[in-house]
Amino acid sequence: MGNAENIKIVLVNTSHPGNIGAAARAMKNMGLSQMVLVNPVDFPSGVAVGRAVSAVDILENAVVVDTLEEAIADCSLVIGTSARSRKVPWPMVTPESCAEKIVSESATSKTAIVFGREDSGLNNEELQLCTYHVQIPTNPGYSSLNLAAAVMVISYEVLKKMQQEELSVVKTEDEYWDQEKATGQQLEHFFEHLERVMIKIRFHDPDNPRLLMQRMRRLFGRIRVDVMEMNILRGILTNIEFNLKETPEALGTGSDQVEQ
Amino acid sequence: MGNAENIKIVLVNTSHPGNIGAAARAMKNMGLSQMVLVNPVDFPSGVAVGRAVSAVDILENAVVVDTLEEAIADCSLVIGTSARSRKVPWPMVTPESCAEKIVSESATSKTAIVFGREDSGLNNEELQLCTYHVQIPTNPGYSSLNLAAAVMVISYEVLKKMQQEELSVVKTEDEYWDQEKATGQQLEHFFEHLERVMIKIRFHDPDNPRLLMQRMRRLFGRIRVDVMEMNILRGILTNIEFNLKETPEALGTGSDQVEQ
Repeated sequence: MGNAENIKIVLVNTSHPGNIGAAARAMKNMGLSQMVLVNPVDFPSGVAVGRAVSAVDILENAVVVDTLEEAIADCSLVIGTSARSRKVPWPMVTPESCAEKIVSESATSKTAIVFGREDSGLNNEELQLCTYHVQIPTNPGYSSLNLAAAVMVISYEVLKKMQQEELSVVKTEDEYWDQEKATGQQLEHFFEHLERVMIKIRFHDPDNPRLLMQRMRRLFGRIRVDVMEMNILRGILTNIEFNLKETPEALGTGSDQVEQ
Repeated sequence: MGNAENIKIVLVNTSHPGNIGAAARAMKNMGLSQMVLVNPVDFPSGVAVGRAVSAVDILENAVVVDTLEEAIADCSLVIGTSARSRKVPWPMVTPESCAEKIVSESATSKTAIVFGREDSGLNNEELQLCTYHVQIPTNPGYSSLNLAAAVMVISYEVLKKMQQEELSVVKTEDEYWDQEKATGQQLEHFFEHLERVMIKIRFHDPDNPRLLMQRMRRLFGRIRVDVMEMNILRGILTNIEFNLKETPEALGTGSDQVEQ
């Protein structure tokens, strides 16, 4: 069963406190309570309190952090809102599918849905910290949603999914899983280790990175690695390092001409 | 096919012009344009214009009338929003079902979705002018929605229904992917290659395989690797082989004591 306590609504670098208040109200209307504010421009604020109406408790309990990494460090599933497709295509889900994945995952571990700045959304680095991107369907002629309106739509889909679950208790795939999912921080350590090894074997040139690390993030992000698998992957990387030729100068070059 | 021109959003006796502006924005985001204001307290208003952002055209074209009867006189289907069941039981629909009925009816005639006052909603007389009542699901502990948030949710369901109609075949997540998925055979070749490398780096002992290859199959099986990613993974394995120490006897042992 989904657990609303395990669903964070993360607002990144919000400019207008009124939007923070309205988002808090939308969250509470839809049964969510965990608000995280990444580097808000103006918070705490009386304007936010005014717009929150009876959801002031959400504002009072909101966690304020400096970076998105901090906000999602303990989350095993992170979905970012995105208005349009980017250079690197990312697994894109609908609001319904977003809600389904988040509610299912929340049964066993922490999750986050991330909303960007009013004017420019999430930047590419932030989007790449997300497992999936969710796009709210809009009129193509005017797709710029108010931040609180976007929070409302996504939270509404989450509530619907929660209520559907209550009506029909169906075990999801994840609940049968025998291992906990790796956290965002464990995944970041893995990516650092992977990058180090790929450089050592001369597959990856940090001065000419092409899109290699983004592609690896996209790949291992959607795999939803569990803790034992993460141990195995880290073990493989460690053994590779132990068995490499000593000097970088002596290293041969394999077929690293993969088209990216 | 549904026709957005035949769908009126009717706001009854709205107190705050900011809500009218935000409702206009939500409507335009969701492809609706026909706003009718019944006896608004403060309209026209600069506050409404500010909150409408790029939906000022909706405000400019809004029709202002004195009574709900006037607003819906030419409509064959009228659905009113209602926070709770009333003394007189009425046919109650979900937002999805509301959208389905409205979009279907809009193909041939005018329809309306009616929203009440911020503080008290629609009164009983007004509710009885409606064919159906729609209730947005909420947290029972805090069911009072902001007016514009309610317009957003209902308009979003209308847009989804419109778009579903347009795409008689709904695109799935997979169809948005930019690369073909790897075939079963390509995946098998990858597993053979992976096993070979894991043996070479002494992570894997085929005489004591434990569950390693099963775990790798489970991991990469659920990832749905695409063709370019497969090329990258194979390239990494090849480069590892090129950069290993020569003789198996000389191979060191890293931490291969991962619990499996």
